Amino acid sequence: MVALGGGHGLAAALGAWRQLTPELTAVVTVADDGGSSGRIRREMPVLPPGDLRMALAALAGEDPGQQEMARLLQHRLGGTGVLAGHPVGNLVLTGLVELHGGDTVRALDAVCELVGACGRVLPMADVPLDLVARVQTVDPDDPARARTIRGQVAIASTPGRVRDILVSPPDPPVHPDVLAAIAAADVVSLGPGSWYTSVLPHLLVPRLRAALAATRARVVVVLNLEPQPGETDGFSPEEHLRVLQAHLGGVALHTVVADAESVVDRCGLLSAVRECGAELVLAPVAAPDGSPRHDPARLSAALASVVGAR
Amino acid sequence: MVALGGGHGLAAALGAWRQLTPELTAVVTVADDGGSSGRIRREMPVLPPGDLRMALAALAGEDPGQQEMARLLQHRLGGTGVLAGHPVGNLVLTGLVELHGGDTVRALDAVCELVGACGRVLPMADVPLDLVARVQTVDPDDPARARTIRGQVAIASTPGRVRDILVSPPDPPVHPDVLAAIAAADVVSLGPGSWYTSVLPHLLVPRLRAALAATRARVVVVLNLEPQPGETDGFSPEEHLRVLQAHLGGVALHTVVADAESVVDRCGLLSAVRECGAELVLAPVAAPDGSPRHDPARLSAALASVVGAR
Repeated sequence: MVALGGGHGLAAALGAWRQLTPELTAVVTVADDGGSSGRIRREMPVLPPGDLRMALAALAGEDPGQQEMARLLQHRLGGTGVLAGHPVGNLVLTGLVELHGGDTVRALDAVCELVGACGRVLPMADVPLDLVARVQTVDPDDPARARTIRGQVAIASTPGRVRDILVSPPDPPVHPDVLAAIAAADVVSLGPGSWYTSVLPHLLVPRLRAALAATRARVVVVLNLEPQPGETDGFSPEEHLRVLQAHLGGVALHTVVADAESVVDRCGLLSAVRECGAELVLAPVAAPDGSPRHDPARLSAALASVVGAR
Repeated sequence: MVALGGGHGLAAALGAWRQLTPELTAVVTVADDGGSSGRIRREMPVLPPGDLRMALAALAGEDPGQQEMARLLQHRLGGTGVLAGHPVGNLVLTGLVELHGGDTVRALDAVCELVGACGRVLPMADVPLDLVARVQTVDPDDPARARTIRGQVAIASTPGRVRDILVSPPDPPVHPDVLAAIAAADVVSLGPGSWYTSVLPHLLVPRLRAALAATRARVVVVLNLEPQPGETDGFSPEEHLRVLQAHLGGVALHTVVADAESVVDRCGLLSAVRECGAELVLAPVAAPDGSPRHDPARLSAALASVVGAR
């Protein structure tokens, strides 16, 4: 089982999948350039650690000591100085990478050991990536004109609609363990998460896309509960899916999981799913408190039906 | 067995003592205001973590995973930015203290667990300390005048001879576990280390000094191999001892360990030791490569003879 994604969305997916399989690999976006990760990237030649750290914390074991370590990884330093806001895990991961001569995968395995992770966390590429997007301008006089913007933060917060996105460098190296995990997987999941900055980037890396096209795994997409302000403002679930479809490039989609409550136009979504050649699973996967996030137990139940239905 | 001190000197003492006892407590200076510790102290209301981190690393277990964690704690972040130079352990310890609502001892115990420490590491006071020294001026026109300088860095690097030293606040709280460890100890050691900034401060904290005066433990002082540039420039071993004696305030000294090779005036040292009412152990405790540091195995052999002789 391989889960692709980044940020809180991937953490939710991992929280669900870990209840279903003892062999779980997270393949995590390394294109973040904001916050603590952005500050670290600008200081040191390492992969942005933030999304990797969140995945590590999501896979931590349940012993009190392991949970304490996971909380420490997620804890952001306080104070009012230059350290404020850095999650301890970002600094630990960066230090381990340096200690191991730049070997990010070895550093990630060491943190997995530390937190007793029920799985592995791997980066989607071996070098830091930049996202580059063509964005529709909001200029009413020239609506056809597009701007090019660079960087996850800029893209995630753009007021203009994203038309197209690519990664830089265009064909980054991918760790062999990532390719092997995808080749050996029974199930691969994509999403939920920031669509343009955490979900699509995996399909923009040629070696990763080729591995996804070649695997015999069932490919499951978990749609978001609601659009992100900015990059997918006003996107319906079927629009999310159409954007994804435009980037599949030979990758087969088998199952689309959507929250039953969040879908307004079921017919529209169903026809978009069928256009992809996939089946639709509508289930209550949102948090019961109404907050716009997936509930790991509910998502896990929905995914169990997908895996069982194979 | 309780070892008092700070910095590399305490690490050397711990490296020696850990070979002799399974019950080892390090009581560590918290007066550092330089380097990474100083930067952290200025940003956050925590104890300076540097000396505590070094003691934790010195007590790490011998499993490869524990040794990797110890190396990580000691690893200084690279790059050219504001994180450069911070040992990862200082940031981990600071994060754990914040995570546990300011409970430094709980954070230290958690790191001990993490590295499989063969003992405990405790701070000499529950609040950060500042050292304040009266220093003889180097003004040739007025050699009797003294200046007051504040801070470990300033004191350790002063060109003037230190006359007198005190801590601020003058009567800081001391954790009950520190007092209990001293009361229950068979042996308490002081030094080696920067005399004015890592060794004497313990005797300047009234509650610590009272505990040392009341304990039935054998008190062992390990003298430095050579004077520190600045604070103890030109100090002979017997001058180190006289400075210590002036600050004992009721604490009994039982044994003084000095390196046989480093002592020039054996008679002078012997009489200084006798003035303190102590016995002198001269042994080859310096590193065999001639570098000015204690060799843990040799120091351990010398301390074994002290402990065995009880």
